[in-house]
Amino acid sequence: MARVRLRTAQETQDRTATAQPARKRRAPPGTAPGTLIPDPHAPPPTIRVIAYNANDILEVECDDPEALPEILAAWPVVWVDVVGLGNVGTIRRLGELLDLHHLSLEDVVNVHQRPKVEDYEDHLFIVMRMVDAEIATEQLSMFLGSGFVLTFQERPGDSFEPVRERLRRGRAIRERGADYLAYALTDAVVDAYFPVLEAYGESLEILREKILHDPTPPSIAEVDDTKRELLTLRRAAWPQRDMVGALMREEADGFFQDKTRPYLRDTYDHCMQIVELTESFRDLASSLSELYATLAAARSNEVMRVLTMVATIFIPLSFIAGVYGMNFDPEVSPYNMPELRWALGYPFVLFLMASVAFGLLGYFYRKGWLRRFDRPPRSKRD
Amino acid sequence: MARVRLRTAQETQDRTATAQPARKRRAPPGTAPGTLIPDPHAPPPTIRVIAYNANDILEVECDDPEALPEILAAWPVVWVDVVGLGNVGTIRRLGELLDLHHLSLEDVVNVHQRPKVEDYEDHLFIVMRMVDAEIATEQLSMFLGSGFVLTFQERPGDSFEPVRERLRRGRAIRERGADYLAYALTDAVVDAYFPVLEAYGESLEILREKILHDPTPPSIAEVDDTKRELLTLRRAAWPQRDMVGALMREEADGFFQDKTRPYLRDTYDHCMQIVELTESFRDLASSLSELYATLAAARSNEVMRVLTMVATIFIPLSFIAGVYGMNFDPEVSPYNMPELRWALGYPFVLFLMASVAFGLLGYFYRKGWLRRFDRPPRSKRD
Amino acid sequence: MARVRLRTAQETQDRTATAQPARKRRAPPGTAPGTLIPDPHAPPPTIRVIAYNANDILEVECDDPEALPEILAAWPVVWVDVVGLGNVGTIRRLGELLDLHHLSLEDVVNVHQRPKVEDYEDHLFIVMRMVDAEIATEQLSMFLGSGFVLTFQERPGDSFEPVRERLRRGRAIRERGADYLAYALTDAVVDAYFPVLEAYGESLEILREKILHDPTPPSIAEVDDTKRELLTLRRAAWPQRDMVGALMREEADGFFQDKTRPYLRDTYDHCMQIVELTESFRDLASSLSELYATLAAARSNEVMRVLTMVATIFIPLSFIAGVYGMNFDPEVSPYNMPELRWALGYPFVLFLMASVAFGLLGYFYRKGWLRRFDRPPRSKRD
Amino acid sequence: MARVRLRTAQETQDRTATAQPARKRRAPPGTAPGTLIPDPHAPPPTIRVIAYNANDILEVECDDPEALPEILAAWPVVWVDVVGLGNVGTIRRLGELLDLHHLSLEDVVNVHQRPKVEDYEDHLFIVMRMVDAEIATEQLSMFLGSGFVLTFQERPGDSFEPVRERLRRGRAIRERGADYLAYALTDAVVDAYFPVLEAYGESLEILREKILHDPTPPSIAEVDDTKRELLTLRRAAWPQRDMVGALMREEADGFFQDKTRPYLRDTYDHCMQIVELTESFRDLASSLSELYATLAAARSNEVMRVLTMVATIFIPLSFIAGVYGMNFDPEVSPYNMPELRWALGYPFVLFLMASVAFGLLGYFYRKGWLRRFDRPPRSKRD
Amino acid sequence: MARVRLRTAQETQDRTATAQPARKRRAPPGTAPGTLIPDPHAPPPTIRVIAYNANDILEVECDDPEALPEILAAWPVVWVDVVGLGNVGTIRRLGELLDLHHLSLEDVVNVHQRPKVEDYEDHLFIVMRMVDAEIATEQLSMFLGSGFVLTFQERPGDSFEPVRERLRRGRAIRERGADYLAYALTDAVVDAYFPVLEAYGESLEILREKILHDPTPPSIAEVDDTKRELLTLRRAAWPQRDMVGALMREEADGFFQDKTRPYLRDTYDHCMQIVELTESFRDLASSLSELYATLAAARSNEVMRVLTMVATIFIPLSFIAGVYGMNFDPEVSPYNMPELRWALGYPFVLFLMASVAFGLLGYFYRKGWLRRFDRPPRSKRD
Repeated sequence: MARVRLRTAQETQDRTATAQPARKRRAPPGTAPGTLIPDPHAPPPTIRVIAYNANDILEVECDDPEALPEILAAWPVVWVDVVGLGNVGTIRRLGELLDLHHLSLEDVVNVHQRPKVEDYEDHLFIVMRMVDAEIATEQLSMFLGSGFVLTFQERPGDSFEPVRERLRRGRAIRERGADYLAYALTDAVVDAYFPVLEAYGESLEILREKILHDPTPPSIAEVDDTKRELLTLRRAAWPQRDMVGALMREEADGFFQDKTRPYLRDTYDHCMQIVELTESFRDLASSLSELYATLAAARSNEVMRVLTMVATIFIPLSFIAGVYGMNFDPEVSPYNMPELRWALGYPFVLFLMASVAFGLLGYFYRKGWLRRFDRPPRSKRD
Repeated sequence: MARVRLRTAQETQDRTATAQPARKRRAPPGTAPGTLIPDPHAPPPTIRVIAYNANDILEVECDDPEALPEILAAWPVVWVDVVGLGNVGTIRRLGELLDLHHLSLEDVVNVHQRPKVEDYEDHLFIVMRMVDAEIATEQLSMFLGSGFVLTFQERPGDSFEPVRERLRRGRAIRERGADYLAYALTDAVVDAYFPVLEAYGESLEILREKILHDPTPPSIAEVDDTKRELLTLRRAAWPQRDMVGALMREEADGFFQDKTRPYLRDTYDHCMQIVELTESFRDLASSLSELYATLAAARSNEVMRVLTMVATIFIPLSFIAGVYGMNFDPEVSPYNMPELRWALGYPFVLFLMASVAFGLLGYFYRKGWLRRFDRPPRSKRD
Repeated sequence: MARVRLRTAQETQDRTATAQPARKRRAPPGTAPGTLIPDPHAPPPTIRVIAYNANDILEVECDDPEALPEILAAWPVVWVDVVGLGNVGTIRRLGELLDLHHLSLEDVVNVHQRPKVEDYEDHLFIVMRMVDAEIATEQLSMFLGSGFVLTFQERPGDSFEPVRERLRRGRAIRERGADYLAYALTDAVVDAYFPVLEAYGESLEILREKILHDPTPPSIAEVDDTKRELLTLRRAAWPQRDMVGALMREEADGFFQDKTRPYLRDTYDHCMQIVELTESFRDLASSLSELYATLAAARSNEVMRVLTMVATIFIPLSFIAGVYGMNFDPEVSPYNMPELRWALGYPFVLFLMASVAFGLLGYFYRKGWLRRFDRPPRSKRD
Repeated sequence: MARVRLRTAQETQDRTATAQPARKRRAPPGTAPGTLIPDPHAPPPTIRVIAYNANDILEVECDDPEALPEILAAWPVVWVDVVGLGNVGTIRRLGELLDLHHLSLEDVVNVHQRPKVEDYEDHLFIVMRMVDAEIATEQLSMFLGSGFVLTFQERPGDSFEPVRERLRRGRAIRERGADYLAYALTDAVVDAYFPVLEAYGESLEILREKILHDPTPPSIAEVDDTKRELLTLRRAAWPQRDMVGALMREEADGFFQDKTRPYLRDTYDHCMQIVELTESFRDLASSLSELYATLAAARSNEVMRVLTMVATIFIPLSFIAGVYGMNFDPEVSPYNMPELRWALGYPFVLFLMASVAFGLLGYFYRKGWLRRFDRPPRSKRD
Repeated sequence: MARVRLRTAQETQDRTATAQPARKRRAPPGTAPGTLIPDPHAPPPTIRVIAYNANDILEVECDDPEALPEILAAWPVVWVDVVGLGNVGTIRRLGELLDLHHLSLEDVVNVHQRPKVEDYEDHLFIVMRMVDAEIATEQLSMFLGSGFVLTFQERPGDSFEPVRERLRRGRAIRERGADYLAYALTDAVVDAYFPVLEAYGESLEILREKILHDPTPPSIAEVDDTKRELLTLRRAAWPQRDMVGALMREEADGFFQDKTRPYLRDTYDHCMQIVELTESFRDLASSLSELYATLAAARSNEVMRVLTMVATIFIPLSFIAGVYGMNFDPEVSPYNMPELRWALGYPFVLFLMASVAFGLLGYFYRKGWLRRFDRPPRSKRD
């Protein structure tokens, strides 16, 4: 079973756990807005450009942003994919070349943004959170302008390969504009949540089996981990749904063509499903905790019962044995345990002990304490 | 008692449990929208056509979608019912013949959709989730166009037989259009939730009896199962209500005639009742868990009390017996347990023991520990 | 104390408990809408007609609906009160005579409707749930048309007697139209919730006293019963509030005169109070469960403490006694318990035991385990 | 510490507890609306009139409502303050003199109203709930008409004295109209919640200290009391906020002058703070219950551990002692406990016992059961 | 690790805990609105004026408010920063000089306001709550008028130093108006929440480690503290978000220029993140409580199991030893424990004891009670 562990890519770098999605990479309070503060640990950027028209496609990796204006002029749709945020200069230069708002560039570098969409008149700024089975949540910043899509990823590895493949092979996608590309990338990001959620579903199912068979603390620690990771996922999924909803509706006027809208509605449906699955899994995780608590208590009660049965029966018997172990000598006084002198004294005492034992068992049985444990009376309606 | 176990039909095939409604049958992230990926385990489709006008009815099972255009041309209302999604070609061909949007066809094949309604100008696409007492939730995809209703079921077995019977027998339903047929099918799907919910109601009632009489872990596992199944039901019921509400209101303009609206309002009322019952049952299931926990703890405390009473009284007595069982010889020293030499030493010790026992009982009684258990003091106001 | 037990009248007949408000009397899925399926156990209908104008009043019990048109023609306001739904023919005939929609008649017979109001152009269809201290919730279906109010009750016994009395005695109410009568009946239904809620309030108060004095399982089963009954009440109260709110606002245009509106606002206020009281009582019932759990645990801990104190002190003492009860003979070896030969051996052992006992007590006292139990240190701020 | 106990004044009279705010003083279901049913226990009314203009003020206690018209005619603003609702005649007469709606008068007498504002065209009817540290919540009914404010209090004692003082002393308030007086009274009622809430804050703080130091059942009963009282407070605070919001916004057109609005906004802010504080305190009270449960369980576990350590070590030792206390005579058979005949038999047995004891301790220590209790291993990051 | 303890500055002065944010500094109910009641413990105000235009900056500390009009006349933007609210006269005089509404001045002095924005036509009144790592929440009151920003802080120490530095150094900020300064200050206040939240994140992470390794009561008290502090933080964060949202939207028309709006949207995003982080941390804190309870119960059960195993095995053995310790003399009667006379009696008894012990172990093992503890059976799917 592949346990998924959701962390923001940032967290993975910082070696800190899921609960702190917002650590250290933030500009100090009071600094000027739009200041780009590089993360010293971020990998250096590689720029991969895919430009296409209905008939042709250009795929090139370029280190120098200065080559972009030429490509932008020559092709109807250009996708600039920047992986790694380690060089603030490159990002700033891209912003200048494409005329992007400096506030949005700050959000590109500070990779703790919630999914959102912002409309800067001549371009749309979209923030998403990508999940993948290995590295967890990573910020994807996307700019959609006229004729270009610019994406920033924190680190190599994404779920865009099928989109690239479709661009390379099919005319269908190449005949459409930059807005359709933006949709295709959004859809790829959203759909990548499903395998992760499926892994959580499986993991919860397995945990449930474990807990039903054997409620031990390690299981509960795993449940708790899952809860925390689902909390992180939920923090990404809810605003992502709102973001796609906003794209689908009014805010994106002009950027998305009408014929792309039904596709966004489809993506919105997927976002809804992701949100519902996340909430369902959170519910399931919560009920696992409860189930664990209940079953652990049941087991504890069972153990208790054994102790009680054994102790309740033997303590009085031991007391009787103790009495006849006292050193009162029947020789000394006729009142001193005359049974010791009886021919049948010992059998009598054994019989007394057996009587006490069975009496206690019978008394408890009649009070219903033993019966209830042994064989539960079935409901009459079964 | 007929325990209902709610699973999506998909899950039943996959042999996976209720918690994973979204497994494996999904297109991989990044694939082109509208791609129909067949499920290798889905049964091959059978196409059943019912065409009617006020006076006549044609009921025919046809394997070839190509026969449809002729029927559609000849009859005012045609219901095409496709059972089994195993042949993607058939589905695609039906889509072409009836001019359906390829995105909606993708949703037909990927049977994990939430109930929803989508308006594609010349046809309405409706997704519902059918429940039945045996197999659990199954996706029903319905297209309502001018003069036809096209339904896709995952597998044989539905709750439409009474509708077919009404079509065969009565003129009343045959005089109305395709929109009324769509309503009748929607209503049949919605009403099929009630027997399932009633079974849950009964099952919860029986579980409650069990728990009140005998709070054992198996009951709690059943409660947990019920909770999970109600969660699945709820995930279907809520969006189904919204879907019917959307049909009833503006979104369906043109597709439903005004005189069909009051019927949809009736169906909406039923959806509301389903949602409320589901929530009520979830509440009841939750309170069963709590009740179980409380009663199990109460039983545990009762057991504890027995142990404590027996141990508290006999431990000191055994100690006294132990003291007089020590081998100090009164012959050796006058300080060595002179009682052993007394004529009434043994009766004295027995009396001492009885005093200690009653003293303890009395002390505890006075502190109110025993009294409270024996006979609870009734509230003065009773 | 008068415990109220809330059941729908239907349930009372079926002898099933509160959790299944929707059992068996429902038409099977797929049957034609508007089909009236009689309940074989419903009592036969009696029709009671009260017709009045400002000066006069006619009160008559008639078995034949055919007599109605004449009365309707002769009097400005007619109240037709049908008690018992056992004869579907009568209901259908009444529907024809008063021109009622067949969907609403179906809702009259299927007595599981949520409170609602439906506007059928020439009449208003109102569903309410009546409670009374003895039989619990019962569906009241009311039609308000021009000049008549038609009510259907499931069974004899209602809270309308004061309204009838006002009709018989006072002109004030007789001078107003059918809308005011509908208001008066609605108000009577709503106000009948208050005594029931008061009984719950008292019952919760008494349960709280019981639990504070003696947290036993029977109390918790009663709390659970109360919770379930409040859940039923809530399921009636919430939509009832919305229904009255809808009457008060736009939906009822034409049916209610403007001068009746302030009265409906008053009824709406009462509905709000009922909803708030129900929610409050649910909160109180929940906190009773918690209180019970806490107090039961506290009592269990007290018992535990007694056991621990007794056992902790006597187990080591018994061990010492056991040691000196071993049969090592000091005659055989000088190392064999020489104390047995000492003149003060026995007092020494007794002293040893006392030291151990006090030592343990002191040790525990110093660790704060005993002290904390005996006399809780008060907060410094008291 | 001054524990506040919140009850409605009505409850205080009825000697019933906080959970039943709606007892017995309600008109029976079905009675005509507007019927004034006197509470036999309500104190007789005293009428106190304060009339003023910018220059002068008249303060008079009058028993006869008939004197009012004259005063109303002579002064621009008149405040009629009726304390005690024991005389229905007086109230009805006041209603006639000031032309008040009879439904609102019914609400004056039935002192279980939720805070609300109702617009009766020529006067505004405002219901509030007053709290004070001693007697708890009491209904204040206020009528604001042109040139007069009429208030009804259930019983003597209010928080209006500072307002009266301001009226007597300052021109500032006397220059403004009746609407400003209504605001000033509303503000006084709202601000009187703060000392009560502060007392709850303190009380919760003290309870927390108590629970942290000594989690005993009395504390939890106090927490439960506080929860119930906060529930009552909340039931008053939420609708009070809505009521002031309604005054501030559209509903009060005409009654409040524009220059009074900013003051109402201020009062609304205070209502918001009251609502937030109440919710905060409810949260705190809930977390106190949880804290109690956790700490009580922790203490119970501590006690358990002592018992286990003592019992686990001494039970095997006692068994060994018991073995050597058996009366097998080494004289009789060489197999009969030859140790009894050894010179070092007794030291050997003592050594055996010590070994067992230390062995057990060591075993448990190695399994980490003892270690974990003694000195918790600190997190590495501290 | 730097534990942050959130208190309002007021509370820190009063030496009262986090639960009482509203103590004693409030005007008594009924006092005239706008009355400024000084806090005797508030530090005396120091007034620091920063006035600037694009080219120049004046920074001066002035004790006398009378100097302000001159500065205001001479510079386009003036920031008056008042630290300390100890002198009501100064505040009132500032209000007169800048023509501020007296209700807002009252809110400046009563430092328990919720974050809010109020529009007084010629100036905007903004209340925020500042947090800092050392002293916790403090009220910041800000007035934004044409050409000036007036801020009131409760005590020295703020997060505005970077803003002052930017004012001193850069022209960028000095070229913009007072509205941009107000934004910059708001942004500094909002951003100062992040380090505090990060500290809570860390603190929760460390607490989780502690609890996983060693669930002791001190940890739970810390969790409870954290919960309470997050509650305080939340009470500040939610209305702060609404306040910034209100600034961003319509209410601030005229005060903020259009080109400042995108910056406010950025700040609003930060507020959203703060709210979400706070809620996440509250969720995490709650799940820590649950985790603690579960793990503490698990540990308790482990201890219980040890006791039960030891007691269950040794109690019957001790009983057997006790029987053979009874003083029945085989000489006296042939029935008196003839085993004592057997050559192999003692080995027989030892064997009996061993049989009982292993029999019990085996019985429990077969019932699965021991097995389950030793080695949990793994789920088959692992």
